[in-house]
Amino acid sequence: MDFNFFMPVRVVSGRDCVLKSGSRLSRLGKKALIITGKNSAKRSGALSDVSAVLEEEKVETEIFNKVSANPLLSVCAEAGETAKKYGADFVIAIGGGSVLDCAKAAAIFAANSFETDEEIYKKEFKNSPLPLVVIGTTAGTGSEVSPTAVITVDSIMEKRSITGDMCYPTLALCDPKYSYDLPRDITVSTALDTFAHATEGWFSKKRNTTVELFASKCLPETFAVLKALASGERLSEEQRDTMYYCSIFGGMILCIGTTFPHLLGYTLTDKRGVAHGQACAVFDKCLIEFCTAEAPKQAQRFFEMLHSTPNEVSSVLEKLISIPEEVKFSEKEIEEYSQNWTDENPKLKNVFGEFKRKDALKIFNTLFLR
Amino acid sequence: MDFNFFMPVRVVSGRDCVLKSGSRLSRLGKKALIITGKNSAKRSGALSDVSAVLEEEKVETEIFNKVSANPLLSVCAEAGETAKKYGADFVIAIGGGSVLDCAKAAAIFAANSFETDEEIYKKEFKNSPLPLVVIGTTAGTGSEVSPTAVITVDSIMEKRSITGDMCYPTLALCDPKYSYDLPRDITVSTALDTFAHATEGWFSKKRNTTVELFASKCLPETFAVLKALASGERLSEEQRDTMYYCSIFGGMILCIGTTFPHLLGYTLTDKRGVAHGQACAVFDKCLIEFCTAEAPKQAQRFFEMLHSTPNEVSSVLEKLISIPEEVKFSEKEIEEYSQNWTDENPKLKNVFGEFKRKDALKIFNTLFLR
Repeated sequence: MDFNFFMPVRVVSGRDCVLKSGSRLSRLGKKALIITGKNSAKRSGALSDVSAVLEEEKVETEIFNKVSANPLLSVCAEAGETAKKYGADFVIAIGGGSVLDCAKAAAIFAANSFETDEEIYKKEFKNSPLPLVVIGTTAGTGSEVSPTAVITVDSIMEKRSITGDMCYPTLALCDPKYSYDLPRDITVSTALDTFAHATEGWFSKKRNTTVELFASKCLPETFAVLKALASGERLSEEQRDTMYYCSIFGGMILCIGTTFPHLLGYTLTDKRGVAHGQACAVFDKCLIEFCTAEAPKQAQRFFEMLHSTPNEVSSVLEKLISIPEEVKFSEKEIEEYSQNWTDENPKLKNVFGEFKRKDALKIFNTLFLR
Repeated sequence: MDFNFFMPVRVVSGRDCVLKSGSRLSRLGKKALIITGKNSAKRSGALSDVSAVLEEEKVETEIFNKVSANPLLSVCAEAGETAKKYGADFVIAIGGGSVLDCAKAAAIFAANSFETDEEIYKKEFKNSPLPLVVIGTTAGTGSEVSPTAVITVDSIMEKRSITGDMCYPTLALCDPKYSYDLPRDITVSTALDTFAHATEGWFSKKRNTTVELFASKCLPETFAVLKALASGERLSEEQRDTMYYCSIFGGMILCIGTTFPHLLGYTLTDKRGVAHGQACAVFDKCLIEFCTAEAPKQAQRFFEMLHSTPNEVSSVLEKLISIPEEVKFSEKEIEEYSQNWTDENPKLKNVFGEFKRKDALKIFNTLFLR
């Protein structure tokens, strides 16, 4: 057994937990900046719950609702600047992974002054970030409990992770009801994202006893939901609840870092706009196939936990993965985008078996070379 | 599923993790008060590891080694005063549960000024406690990751818990090697304590998904160790490692609170000096028997996880429980000591089935009425 663990977020879950968290929220200050995307905060009902509880607690709020999928660093900085000007004591993020990640960066920007936005990657800040409350409206990202914000740097239009203790939210309020109305495409993509987190954790050399334990809960339950989705079922509220909590377990697995499906997936998202969960899933399927051959011991237990077979897992993923035909890359593009897919990159090196740059290129070329 | 979780301690584990934690320790300050008991810190080798790494990091230290089993509030206050006078930036506790609990209180005393020692129970402090590093030398308490310090109040010679976020250590350095030389009686008593934590969590109405998950890991592994101990085996280093990590899982289960075995057990310890693990175990056996009858669904899964039967579990516990014959109480004493064993006490109320004051008294009288 091996027992490294650090996850300082206070996770409060359950039906109407936002409405019941008035005193926890008001303890954080008198003014909050609420960061959201365009729609989900309203559609899910989370924004109205937050507004109701803060009004009761006499906490003033301002809303910043300019966050899109795959948030830009410049937007994070703008959100931080808005919090600063408003004099916010804390930040509340309502949305999916993009909003939560944006708010993590915004909370840092709000408490510091940088010469350029990119300085946030230096990870050395004069001041601690503003306290951050996160309210997830999707069941996938796990960003609620992870120390990472994945942000697209404007100048290069590539995702770069800000990772460290300063990225942990203070409080995560987890009410699965906010995910009940998610459209099918987002439901599928986010569930695939959670499955990728758990799979990458399971097949990572950095895996430890707690990661195994969280994965042993997350993998079978998530796969059962994926099977239901693959057979065209509409998820019940109970299945939505399960998927929501699985996404939190997935986030706790993330503390050891993702592996090559996320790395290669970023290229599909950065360069071709493929949804994050879909982009990871296409390579997650390759990870499972690679480890079935190269890490049979870990793979055997994996399929046992899923109560499934390699063929069935592939078939379920195939039914859910949907990448447009036109997503192809030229040889030159692949060469350019794959520069950091080195044998020494932990996202390759940590995979059980021996996963090398050549393996990554072979997979990518087979699937996406024009 | 239900997913409340808060455990902000940074747990670093593994062989020689203390020796490898120089930079983590020196980040906490330039002067540390080391709190220990009489022997275990030296015997285990932990003190010499700590001294070596702090010398290298040029962190100055002073030692407070007056902590005995079931630490007195006055000793905690004295340790806090010592830290204050020394100008300690942080506190390092090396030992079993008594030392760790004492240090939690000492870290609060060191940062505050109270009129009387008992004010620490008011839970309202002007200042945050000093950062606390804990290094467990036994495999039982789980205090490394729990928000509780159980302290004996001098004036009444009874245990009272200080519980709250301010009791979480900053850093737990977990190296099972420090437990390799534990004598058999302490090994048994502490393993029984861990088993009680996991059992009480499993049979608690406050149990949630994470508690179930930790218990599903902790219970079977701990019971396997108990079986080995019951058959007179000497534990291997591997079994010691397992038991040590199980005690950490047991501590994470503790976040929902213990139930009646701990409550009744305190009386045996406070009034007759019975070792804490032994005192809990005798009532833990009663809890299992009670829930086997009154909470059959939870009990069935419990025995499945243990790969065992009610008879075998009782028999293993019986072989390990050793309470001196002379530990008996008069009717009057029982009446006096049982005043807070009310139907409304969460330690009774949270037990699956309906566990009442009359059940607690029946058990106690059957076993310990003179």
